[in-house]
Amino acid sequence: MNGNETKIVVRYNETDKMGIVHHSQYVNYFEIARTDFIQQLGISYREIEEKGFMMPVLGVEVHYHKPAQYDDTLLVETTIGAYDSIKLTFDYKIYREKDRKLLVDGSSSHCWTDLSLRPVSIRRKNPDLHALIVKASKQA
Amino acid sequence: MNGNETKIVVRYNETDKMGIVHHSQYVNYFEIARTDFIQQLGISYREIEEKGFMMPVLGVEVHYHKPAQYDDTLLVETTIGAYDSIKLTFDYKIYREKDRKLLVDGSSSHCWTDLSLRPVSIRRKNPDLHALIVKASKQA
Amino acid sequence: MNGNETKIVVRYNETDKMGIVHHSQYVNYFEIARTDFIQQLGISYREIEEKGFMMPVLGVEVHYHKPAQYDDTLLVETTIGAYDSIKLTFDYKIYREKDRKLLVDGSSSHCWTDLSLRPVSIRRKNPDLHALIVKASKQA
Amino acid sequence: MNGNETKIVVRYNETDKMGIVHHSQYVNYFEIARTDFIQQLGISYREIEEKGFMMPVLGVEVHYHKPAQYDDTLLVETTIGAYDSIKLTFDYKIYREKDRKLLVDGSSSHCWTDLSLRPVSIRRKNPDLHALIVKASKQA
Repeated sequence: MNGNETKIVVRYNETDKMGIVHHSQYVNYFEIARTDFIQQLGISYREIEEKGFMMPVLGVEVHYHKPAQYDDTLLVETTIGAYDSIKLTFDYKIYREKDRKLLVDGSSSHCWTDLSLRPVSIRRKNPDLHALIVKASKQA
Repeated sequence: MNGNETKIVVRYNETDKMGIVHHSQYVNYFEIARTDFIQQLGISYREIEEKGFMMPVLGVEVHYHKPAQYDDTLLVETTIGAYDSIKLTFDYKIYREKDRKLLVDGSSSHCWTDLSLRPVSIRRKNPDLHALIVKASKQA
Repeated sequence: MNGNETKIVVRYNETDKMGIVHHSQYVNYFEIARTDFIQQLGISYREIEEKGFMMPVLGVEVHYHKPAQYDDTLLVETTIGAYDSIKLTFDYKIYREKDRKLLVDGSSSHCWTDLSLRPVSIRRKNPDLHALIVKASKQA
Repeated sequence: MNGNETKIVVRYNETDKMGIVHHSQYVNYFEIARTDFIQQLGISYREIEEKGFMMPVLGVEVHYHKPAQYDDTLLVETTIGAYDSIKLTFDYKIYREKDRKLLVDGSSSHCWTDLSLRPVSIRRKNPDLHALIVKASKQA
């Protein structure tokens, strides 16, 4: 694994009447893992927003292999799939910690924008942040 | 009933592994009913925010009598409990439509603020809105 | 449009600090539209579960074009993309009602299972339900 | 503090368009803190359900003092407020970690039931669990 690993414990309110985690929740798990990934680069997503940039989601894809259950500890492995200075793709694999079974995988694509949701080139607007992501995407 | 009645159909993602609606959801149902109540006064909560006012929640209380289930049609009866020009309380009763059983009741208290969450007197800042709410609170 | 159209009004709790609907919500909107689609076939998803069948999600894909905002009325157009007696795909287009702009599109794929999440052939187990879906998929 | 302290980091999807945590989320935070409290007694809520018992919510009360924001680290202090062998009340105080300011407090009341939501005396049905809770409630 060349990416980042994030631990998430399934909450009761994330389950549904099937007795398993509701399928929409994994999109939130991806987001938690993605912001943790960015944090590990040395800058929080909160600080990125404070600097005037956002990373709205252009698309998301989720593939469900096995259901997660209440109180399961999940490990989300996040890597950068593709990056130019405007668009950015993250890939995710969600494992159940106790037996390391793959439960879910997927990806999300994003673009850099300002706080009014207008696309920006992060390479020009924030070269340091750009450099961090280029470095992280090479490690993947 | 002197208040307003709002119809809500329970969504699948609002259930939990007990097979019933998760208890936190009723706070959202209260909010839907409250904004519908305001809409019926002749102004939407969206417009209120566009005019520069908000109505953040100071407190909420929920009493659970019977569980709602997936696909149940609920009727939420909303009335104004108390009002001065700064604080505002709503009372809610949630019934199951098919047998008119009371499932949940509760209340929420609010204060008027500007968009920076500073308290304002709505009587002075927006007398028309104040008048609408006074009228609605007298009908309760 | 040969499919079904479902109206959804954006709730306050579905927005996030960007001021727009949180991207995970659209997966819930798809689910609401899908169960409404099934309802229009003449059987509710609740009854399907009561008969002992479920339709868990194998995969979901969402493409975000424009953000929905608080209080927007959305129209979700649902069609069946593909169907054999085990797997079933739905396609969705989410429009903003007031200007009919396409905000989001996507799809979800499902398989028929029993209540223990074991795959079943619905053609053999429930020919009537199978016939309804075959008919709906031909109209698409 | 004689109770239990649970750390929660605010997730992006828990915020709303006010830019702060949506008020319904604190009911989920209470639940996370309550199950963590029980876990610290030496038994998980998951195991309690596996033994055939549940602890549905009879009522909840939340008082909002200051808003939590995205990425804030929260500390939830949980204590048992009252206990007989059927009913159980938890009290919560939610602090912002960085300055130890009280953001929210509240309580939830519960009764012990079997998996069909019928009330049970946990003292008779599971004396060990009863003893754990009596011990914890004396420490409060």
